[in-house]
Order: sequence, then structure tokens, then C-alpha cells
Amino acid sequence: MRNTRSIPTLDDVAKKAGVSTATVSRCINTPDRVVQSTRTRVLKAVEALGYTPNFGARVMAAKRTFTIGAIIPTMENAIFARGLQAFQEELRNRGYTLLVSSSSYDPQIEEEQIRALVARGADGLLLIGYDRDPALYRYLERQAVPALVAWAYAPDVALPAIGFDNRAAMALLAEKVLTFGHRRIGVISGVIKGNDRAANRVMGIKDALAARGISPDTMTVIETPYGFENGEIAMTELMQSSTPPTVVMCGNDVLAAGALRGASLLGFGVPDDVSVTGFDDIELARVVTPALTTVHVPHREMGTKAATALIALVEGGQSVGAQELTITLQLRDTLGPPKNI
Amino acid sequence: MRNTRSIPTLDDVAKKAGVSTATVSRCINTPDRVVQSTRTRVLKAVEALGYTPNFGARVMAAKRTFTIGAIIPTMENAIFARGLQAFQEELRNRGYTLLVSSSSYDPQIEEEQIRALVARGADGLLLIGYDRDPALYRYLERQAVPALVAWAYAPDVALPAIGFDNRAAMALLAEKVLTFGHRRIGVISGVIKGNDRAANRVMGIKDALAARGISPDTMTVIETPYGFENGEIAMTELMQSSTPPTVVMCGNDVLAAGALRGASLLGFGVPDDVSVTGFDDIELARVVTPALTTVHVPHREMGTKAATALIALVEGGQSVGAQELTITLQLRDTLGPPKNI
Repeated sequence: MRNTRSIPTLDDVAKKAGVSTATVSRCINTPDRVVQSTRTRVLKAVEALGYTPNFGARVMAAKRTFTIGAIIPTMENAIFARGLQAFQEELRNRGYTLLVSSSSYDPQIEEEQIRALVARGADGLLLIGYDRDPALYRYLERQAVPALVAWAYAPDVALPAIGFDNRAAMALLAEKVLTFGHRRIGVISGVIKGNDRAANRVMGIKDALAARGISPDTMTVIETPYGFENGEIAMTELMQSSTPPTVVMCGNDVLAAGALRGASLLGFGVPDDVSVTGFDDIELARVVTPALTTVHVPHREMGTKAATALIALVEGGQSVGAQELTITLQLRDTLGPPKNI
Repeated sequence: MRNTRSIPTLDDVAKKAGVSTATVSRCINTPDRVVQSTRTRVLKAVEALGYTPNFGARVMAAKRTFTIGAIIPTMENAIFARGLQAFQEELRNRGYTLLVSSSSYDPQIEEEQIRALVARGADGLLLIGYDRDPALYRYLERQAVPALVAWAYAPDVALPAIGFDNRAAMALLAEKVLTFGHRRIGVISGVIKGNDRAANRVMGIKDALAARGISPDTMTVIETPYGFENGEIAMTELMQSSTPPTVVMCGNDVLAAGALRGASLLGFGVPDDVSVTGFDDIELARVVTPALTTVHVPHREMGTKAATALIALVEGGQSVGAQELTITLQLRDTLGPPKNI
């Protein structure tokens, strides 16, 4: 309704306030970026005319909407929460508002949300990982909406990205696990299809085995959607097999928290009877008992740098290339030597 | 850029495909709501003309954008995650896309985000709790953007809402705590200013005390932003006072998880030395050891009903009034009798 009725225009407001339409637009979109005196004058004109911002008019005036979209696979479990929080804080410092969509790890939903955010005028998009229909990247190029990939890093892919090498990170942890003497490794992985991060983490474990000349057959992999309950169920399955693993490496901290719970319910002590590792180092890793040994992802650094890089793309149109962040191991209390050594 | 260059219009596509502009708009916005044959015809016309949806034109054609905005206080800690997930699923069933903003519990940021979502053409908004500048409600009314309040319920406020009575819920838990014999009650509350849910939860505890003729002076309240670390710090402060509480009631499960950690680090057993309670019953409540006694909030039911109610507002324009959901106590392992009884 608000879009069809006749209303005072942005031009009317600009004339009355004696400023440019871009300034009016900015007063409405990002008041923090306008000096107080101008803001007051514009807002008085807005009130006097009964002007209600019409977003078509605003886009025409500003070219940009100062809105950034992010599509993340899930809002549950806080995997992306800390990084997104830092992303949003930095965007806000620069006068941009963040709108977030959650795809439930479903490519079809992600596509709908990308299109919706573009249709709503997003100046740029943050996407998690690389793995999606190439047609979507072409669509974004046609729409001239820059996209930045985060949470992953692939130097051989020509997309702007801020992330880390999931495969090398998990290989580093697996090497640590092998150093402890483990040879029967259980893996609880997220669903690999459509998720390059999950796929690369499993490959990282294989890399570490291969580097020591150990057959990947020593590894039992269960794939399951990320989730506490699913980690618990998978752990139960692994530990009730005829040759249970001495260590269970999980694709993220949420699965690992579930695995800890599963071990506890079965009466297995961690790490005395079985070791468990995670990935992400979200707050949950310190909440569980014992505290989780995991891969530390620099969530806040990634979020802040992603905001800077995406704004550079939006404002300058130049690609920032792919930037790799350093990951580290966070050794806590769930990884120890195998029982029978 | 994409908004200023000359491009084929929605009308062109509609003519070429032999359908109405509304149908074209729907094919682009919500393809699931259009039969396959029509969709194929429209998409062919889109491809042939090189049409790229211009959201101004789309809004003109559809009147609605089939986009719903939600502004939540935080994406961290998954407090709102489960409810939002159900909200999004139901919206999607009805052909709507959800865009989410997170305000970091900051009224100024929330206002910016409300305005940004309205400017981006949101058909309706989900807001958490009632407590905000009345000018914002007037702004939404002027913009003809319906808003639904969730996570709270106040029958005396004339706003559409789906929620629960935070005060009565916490009073129910406090009454349970008193039944166990506790009289020295520590409270770790979220920041009350601007947060009616936090305020009402503390009032609920006072109600339960008053109902038994117990002075509220038996209660020590620490206010702190929701967060695991903050719960831990507040717990330490409470337990190191000259007369430590026998039970610590927390404003949510995240604070309670931190409190459990604080108790553990100080060497206090839960519930033998001190009882701890939470609020929300998010997954975290089952992850911690011992498992948390808390107030169960029907997150998924609330999310689903909120979607139905908000769409009714958007499509029918009729208020759905305020609907109250039933909460229950989830008694697990962190509440027991006080030590010295």
C-alpha cells in the first residue's frame, strides 16, 4: 500500500532542507554518517512534508542502499554467530546495515534467499563456502552484486574470499591425534554434499593418515547433519561397533558436544576410554565437561576482515582476492593417548 | 548500478509470457507458489529478454514483496534460534522469505534495523518483546507495515503478540524453588533496561516471595549482559559474598551455564552445595553437567504461530490480538534442597 499511494518525494524533502537528495537518503539510511545539524534540518523537512521514505526513490538517489546481505547455513548452535557479530559491528562502523538469511544447509533455499536479498537491494552479499550452482555466481555478476566467500579459502578459485583452509586445519589436528598414538579413528562428519567445508575436513584427516603411510581404512566415517542429538547418536553407533575407535574426530563442536554426551551415557570416560575432538572453538567447547580439544577458528577476525573486504568490493568494485587466516589448535581435556597403549 | 541502467521491464516479460505482471513477480519471488508450466514460460521470457528483476518494479506489481523481517536481540547463544527456525519454515511454506537483523540488545541499532527492513520493502516485522520507543510503533503504523511482538505476552497492551507471560513463568519456577526450602536466593538477571522479558522474570521471583510473605530482601540480584562468561563472573561474586545464596536463579540458560561453570571452578557441587536454575530450555540446558532445571519455552510452537499470525496481519490487515502460550517447568538435575536443611 505504502508503495502505490501518492507521497511527497525525496526531491521535495531535499529542496525544503536545502541539501542534495543523496544527503537526505543518507540521513534516513545511515544517520550516523551525517552531521547532527544537517540531520536535524532534513528530519524537520521530512516531518513537515509527512515524507515516508520510498525505497525505490532512495535507491535512485543513493545508488547504494547501504545494506549488506549474509546467507548462513544455520542460526542454530552459534557456529556462525561470533563471526557474524563482528561482521555486523564492522559494517555498522562503516554505515551499513546487515540482513541475514539462514538456508538450513539447503541449496534451494539458499538460492531463494540470495535472489530475495538482491531483489531487496543488497549492495553486496556474504556467502559461506564456495560450493553452489555456478549459475548463481553468474546471476550475481549480471546483477552487479559483489559476493564474498567466507569460512573457506581456496587459492585456486577466482572468487573474493576470507577464510581458512579447512583441509589443512583438520590435517593439523589429525596429526596431533596420530602423535598420541591413535590408529582406530572414528569420524563424525557433517553432511558433505553441498558443503565444501565438511568435505575438506574429512579429507584433511585422510591427508594426515597418508602422510604417515597409514591406510584410510583405519577410519570409520559417519555423516550426519550438524546437531547435538545427531552427534550423540553417531557416537553411540561408533562405540557399539565390534572394534570401537580410540578417538572420535567430529566435524564441528556441536557434533563433538553430542559425542561427549553419547560417551557419557554409555559409561565411557573421556579421554580415558575414548578421545573426542571438535572444530570451530565456539563457546560450547568450553561449556562441556571435559572441555573440548578443537580447532580454533578466528571467528571475530574473519568477520571483521570480511566486512572490510566486502565494503571494498561494493565501493570500489575491485576484487580483494582470496585471503587466508591462520588457524590454531586449542588443546583442552578431551584428547589423550589411546587406552591400550 | 543495476538500478539506473535501462533494462527490459516486468511488463515486457509479462507480455512475452502471456501472463500478468503479478504472476511474473511471483515466479521470481516465490517460484514454489507457481505451477511448473507457467514458471517455465515466464523464465523463458526472462531469459530471452535478459530481464533482471528490478525491485522497484516488482513492488509495484506485487504490492507485497513476500519478505518478512525479524529483528532479534542476538544471534549468539541460540536463544532465539529454534523459534526463528520454525518461524522461517512456516513462512517458507507460505511463500515468504525471512530476513533477520540482530540488534545486540541496543535500541538505537534496533531502530536502524527496523527502518532498514521497512526501506527494503519488508511486508511485516517480527519484534522481540514490547519495550521500545513508542515513536517506532507510530512509524510502522504510518508505513503500514504490520508488526508482531513475540517472546512476550501482555494482555493489556494493544499490539498483536504471540508469547508467554515471562513474569508468571518465573514465578512458577521460584515457587518450586521455595518449596524445596530455599530462602537465600541469588539472581543473575539480564540487563533490565529496555528488556521487558528480563524485568518481568525478576518480578516473577518477587511475586513468589510475596505470595509466601517472604521479604524480597532475601534476594540478591546481579544484572549483567546475557553471556556465558558473565554468568560465571556473577556466580563467583555471589558465592564469595559473606552469606552466599543456597540457590541461584538465572535469567536465561546461557547465564545458568556460566553459573554452573563458576560453581565448579570454586569447588561447589550442584545441587549439593548450591542449586542453579535457568530459563528458555535451549539445547545448552541438556549439554551442561549436571543437566539444567529450567523454564521450558515452546520455541517451535511460538515460531510457527508467529508466522501464521504475521501473515494474517500482512494479508488481511486484521490484528490477531495477543495470544498466550503455555510454559512448563523442566525439572532436571540442578535444583535440590538447600544444604543446611
